Amino acid sequence: MDAEEFRKHGHEAVEAIVAYMENINDRPVRSQVAPNYLRQSVPKHAPKEPEDFDQVMKDFNSDIMPGITHWHSGKFCAYYPTAFSYPSMLGEMYMAMLGVNASTWAASPAATELEYITMDWVAKLIGLSDAFLNTGKGGGVIQNSASDATLLVMAAARTRILDHLSTQETIDPHVAATKLVAYSSDQTHSSCQKAAKILGLRFRALPTRDDCILRGDVVRQAMREDIAQGLIPCYITVTIGTTSTGAVDDITSIVEACKDTQVWVHVDAAYAGSAMVCPEFRHFMKGVDQVDSFDFNMHKWLLIHFDCSCLFVKDRGLLVRISTGAPDARATTNPTPSTTLSDTPDLRPQSLEVGGTESGESTTTTTRVESLTDFGPSTNRRFRALRLWFTIRSYGQSGLQNFIRNHINLMRYFQTFLAADGRFEVLTPVHFSLIGLRLNPELCQRVDLGMGGVPDKSNPELRNNAANARLHGMINEAGVFLTKSDLHGKTFIRVSIGAFKSNRESVEHIWSVIQQSTDQMLLTPPQ
Amino acid sequence: MDAEEFRKHGHEAVEAIVAYMENINDRPVRSQVAPNYLRQSVPKHAPKEPEDFDQVMKDFNSDIMPGITHWHSGKFCAYYPTAFSYPSMLGEMYMAMLGVNASTWAASPAATELEYITMDWVAKLIGLSDAFLNTGKGGGVIQNSASDATLLVMAAARTRILDHLSTQETIDPHVAATKLVAYSSDQTHSSCQKAAKILGLRFRALPTRDDCILRGDVVRQAMREDIAQGLIPCYITVTIGTTSTGAVDDITSIVEACKDTQVWVHVDAAYAGSAMVCPEFRHFMKGVDQVDSFDFNMHKWLLIHFDCSCLFVKDRGLLVRISTGAPDARATTNPTPSTTLSDTPDLRPQSLEVGGTESGESTTTTTRVESLTDFGPSTNRRFRALRLWFTIRSYGQSGLQNFIRNHINLMRYFQTFLAADGRFEVLTPVHFSLIGLRLNPELCQRVDLGMGGVPDKSNPELRNNAANARLHGMINEAGVFLTKSDLHGKTFIRVSIGAFKSNRESVEHIWSVIQQSTDQMLLTPPQ
Repeated sequence: MDAEEFRKHGHEAVEAIVAYMENINDRPVRSQVAPNYLRQSVPKHAPKEPEDFDQVMKDFNSDIMPGITHWHSGKFCAYYPTAFSYPSMLGEMYMAMLGVNASTWAASPAATELEYITMDWVAKLIGLSDAFLNTGKGGGVIQNSASDATLLVMAAARTRILDHLSTQETIDPHVAATKLVAYSSDQTHSSCQKAAKILGLRFRALPTRDDCILRGDVVRQAMREDIAQGLIPCYITVTIGTTSTGAVDDITSIVEACKDTQVWVHVDAAYAGSAMVCPEFRHFMKGVDQVDSFDFNMHKWLLIHFDCSCLFVKDRGLLVRISTGAPDARATTNPTPSTTLSDTPDLRPQSLEVGGTESGESTTTTTRVESLTDFGPSTNRRFRALRLWFTIRSYGQSGLQNFIRNHINLMRYFQTFLAADGRFEVLTPVHFSLIGLRLNPELCQRVDLGMGGVPDKSNPELRNNAANARLHGMINEAGVFLTKSDLHGKTFIRVSIGAFKSNRESVEHIWSVIQQSTDQMLLTPPQ
Repeated sequence: MDAEEFRKHGHEAVEAIVAYMENINDRPVRSQVAPNYLRQSVPKHAPKEPEDFDQVMKDFNSDIMPGITHWHSGKFCAYYPTAFSYPSMLGEMYMAMLGVNASTWAASPAATELEYITMDWVAKLIGLSDAFLNTGKGGGVIQNSASDATLLVMAAARTRILDHLSTQETIDPHVAATKLVAYSSDQTHSSCQKAAKILGLRFRALPTRDDCILRGDVVRQAMREDIAQGLIPCYITVTIGTTSTGAVDDITSIVEACKDTQVWVHVDAAYAGSAMVCPEFRHFMKGVDQVDSFDFNMHKWLLIHFDCSCLFVKDRGLLVRISTGAPDARATTNPTPSTTLSDTPDLRPQSLEVGGTESGESTTTTTRVESLTDFGPSTNRRFRALRLWFTIRSYGQSGLQNFIRNHINLMRYFQTFLAADGRFEVLTPVHFSLIGLRLNPELCQRVDLGMGGVPDKSNPELRNNAANARLHGMINEAGVFLTKSDLHGKTFIRVSIGAFKSNRESVEHIWSVIQQSTDQMLLTPPQ
C-alpha cells in the first residue's frame, strides 16, 4: 500500500469512525457469534500475494464486525467501561504516525518528558499530594493495566523489605524471601493474587463482611497470625471501587494497621480513581497521602484509550531497581553491566547520554529524564502520553468533571426507575456509577425454574440465585449487556454505566429491558 | 470535541501522516533538544477549561516535534528498527475506533479469535513447526515486547520444573524454589536478567568468545558446575540476532546440552526473527523445532506497529497456569475462585460462557477461544491482531519477503562503499542488516584525541576505543543516527538498516557522512 492508497483508505477510516461512534447505540450491543466462528471464514494461511484493501475492508465488515461487542454503546453496562474519546482517537493516530520507541530519553525526548509532565497533571487533577509528583522523589508513569501496576509495586515491596531485612544479620535473606506474604481482601481483583503467583510470594485474601469493606482490624489480626507462624507481611492492596460491587476499603485504618511495619500499601482505584477529578468524591481518598502507591485506569472511565493505567509512587527509585534487592538475584554471578532494570547500556547512544538519564537512581532534577524502560518489564514503550495531552487539553478539567458527573447522574436516573418499580433489592453501595440488583426473594419463589433449574429446590438461596441468573440471561438475550456477579453466595445483576455513548435514552432502554424481562419471567412459564 | 470537529482534525491527521512519512528523510533524524526542554513550554497544571484543538496542534508542531527522533527515516540506523506501514497504520485506526477490551472471548470474540488465527499465519510464514500452532497443544499469542515474553516463559519454566520436583519427595519445594538458575550468554539482551530479577531466580550470563556465539559445551559445563553446588538449572535464553552484534547462538548444540533435563529453552529472535519469512535465512533456525518457546518482534522489522511481539510455545497450558506450581503460592490460603491467571470469573457473563473458554487447560478445539487475559500479567488487551490481518493481507507473503530483502540488499550496497574505502575493519558477522565497524587501529594512532581524550595513552586499545567513540560522536552530529557498542572491550560503530524509509539514497547519505567524518577526524586537528 503506497501513500496514495493510504490517503484514500485513511479518509474513509475517519468517516467510518464518526459513523460508527455516532450510530453505535443502534447496534445490537453484544456479539452473537458462536465460538470459533472466524475460522470458518478466514483462510488457514496468509495470502501469497498482496490483496486489494477494498477486499480487506469488505471482509472487515462481513467477518470481523459481527464478532465485535460494542463497549462504547449506551447499551453496554457489563464489567466496567473502557474509554474512548475523539481527542484520544487523534492521539492514537499521531502516536502511530510518529511510531517512536519511548524506551530511553535519547530515543525520543518528547515521548519521555511529556509522560512525566502529563502524569503530574493527572496527579493534581485527582488530588494526590506532591509526594506523588515527578518533580520530587516520587512520581507517576503509565502502565499497561492495573494488573501490571500491581505486579510492579509488589516487586518493589519485595525489594524494599529484603533490603531492610538484609541489614539484620539474624535473618538469612534466602529464607526470608520464601516467607513474604502479600494481602488483599476477598473482593480485590484476582490480578493481585496473579501478581503474587508470578513473583512467587505467598498470598492471603482477607475476609470481608456483607459491605465488602476491608478494615484495619482484620489486616492487623491476619498479620499477627502470620508473624506468629514465622511469615513476613510484605504488601497489601487496598481498593477504591472493588471489581464486583464498587466497595471502598477503609484506607485510614489499614494504613494505621501497617504503621511502623515494612508493609507496602498499594491503592488500586482502577475503576473509581477517575471519579476523583470531582472534589465531591475525594472523601473516598482519605488516607491516600499515607500509602506507598496509587493506581487508576484512565482507560476505563476517563476518555483515554487502553492502555493508560496511571501508577503513582512515593519512591520512584525503588521501581527502577526492583529485585536488585532480591537475594536470589544478588547471589548470582552477574557479568552484565546492567544494575537496574534498564536495557543494555551498550546500545544507548553514548554521545547523547545525559547525567542521570540512564541510572534513574539520583533524585536531582536531571532524573526527570530517566528512561521509561526502567519502570516495568517492557523494554520498549509507545508514546502513550500524547493521548493524555490531547485529551486533557481538549476537555479541560471542567470537561473531565462533566464527563464523570454525567454518568453519575445517569445512574441516579436509573435508580429512580428502580425505586418506582419496587421489585428489586440493591445489594451494593452506589458510590459511583455501578449498582448491583437482585429480584426480591419472595418474587424469586414465584419463578418456575423448570426441570433441573436448580440443584436443591428446598434451599431458597439457591432458588433466588437461579432466578436472578435466569433473569440476567433473559436481559442479555433482549439486547443489552450486563454482567452478573456473586456477593458472599448471593447472585446479583450488575449495572455499570460509563460508556462513551451512555445517555438518558440508553438508560431508559436498559431499564425497559430489565422491566420487561422481569415481567416476562414472572408472568409467563419458561420455555 | 464533537464528531464534526473530529472529522475535520481526523482528515487533517491523515494528510499529516502522509506528509510526515513521505518527507521524513528530509528531516534532521535526531532530536536536538536538551533534557527537560519540554517543562519550559508546557504548563505545570492541566487547563481548567477546554482548549481549541487548533492550538493543541500548533503546540504539537512547535513543542513536541522538536523532541522527536525520527525512527522511520532512512538516516536512522541506531539500535534496531521499529516498524511502520500504511496498512498497520489503518489497523491502529480501526483498533482505536472499536476500542474493545480483548480480555476474554466473550468481551469481543473477533479480537480473541483473530489473534489465534493470525498468529498461526505468522508461525507458518517464518517456518515454525506445527507444534507451535494454536490448532494444537501449543500456539502463539501477542506480547508487548520480547522482554515481557521472556518474563512469561521464564515463569512457565519455573512452574514446570517445580511441578516436576514436587513429585520427588526427596526435595523440599520451598528450598528448590530458591535454587533455580536462569541462563543466557553475555551477549543476550539484559531483559533476560531483568526477568530473573523480577521472578527472584538466580541468573548466570555465560561467556562467549569473539564470535559472540553461545554453544552447548559452555552451557553443559556451567550447568554441571551449578548442579555440583546444589543449584537447579531451570531456563535458558538462546538468541538469533543478538542485540549488540547480531550473532546467532548454536541452537542445536544447546538443545543437545539441555536434553533429558527440565531446562526450558527459549529462543529470543526479537530482531532477526522477521528475516525468517525468507527461506534463505531459515538455516539460522536449525534446532528450533526442539525448543520450548520462540519469540520475535514484528514491531521491530516486519511492518507492524509496536506492540507486536509474537510469542510461540509448545505447551500453551503452562502459560495459563503460571506459578500455580510455585510452592510459595501453593502454600497460601487462597479463597479466591481463580485457579489460573484469568480475571475474576464472577465478572464474566455466565450466559456467554463456552466450554473451555475460561479454563484454558483442556486441549480440545474449544480452547481456541480461551481468554487472552490468561497469557500474561495484563488483564486487558487491545485488538492487536487487527493490524496483522490488515498488513499481512496487504503485503502478502511476497511483499513481506521483499521488504526484508530490500534491507538486506541495502546493507550489501553499504558494504561495497565500506570495502572500497578500506579504512575500517568489520567486527561483527553480517547475517542480516546490521554491521559493526571500527576504524583500523593504525589509523586510530593518527588521531589526536586532545587533552584528557583518553585515560592511558600508552594503552593502544583505549586509544582505539576513544578514536572510534569520537568518530561515532562526529557522525551523529553530522546528521545521521548510529549507536556504538562494545565487543569484549572493543568499541565499535553499529549501522543497523531497517527503517521504513531506508533506500539507496539514504544509504549513500549515511556512507558519505561516515566517510567525511572520518576524513575530518584524520585530517583536521580536533576542536
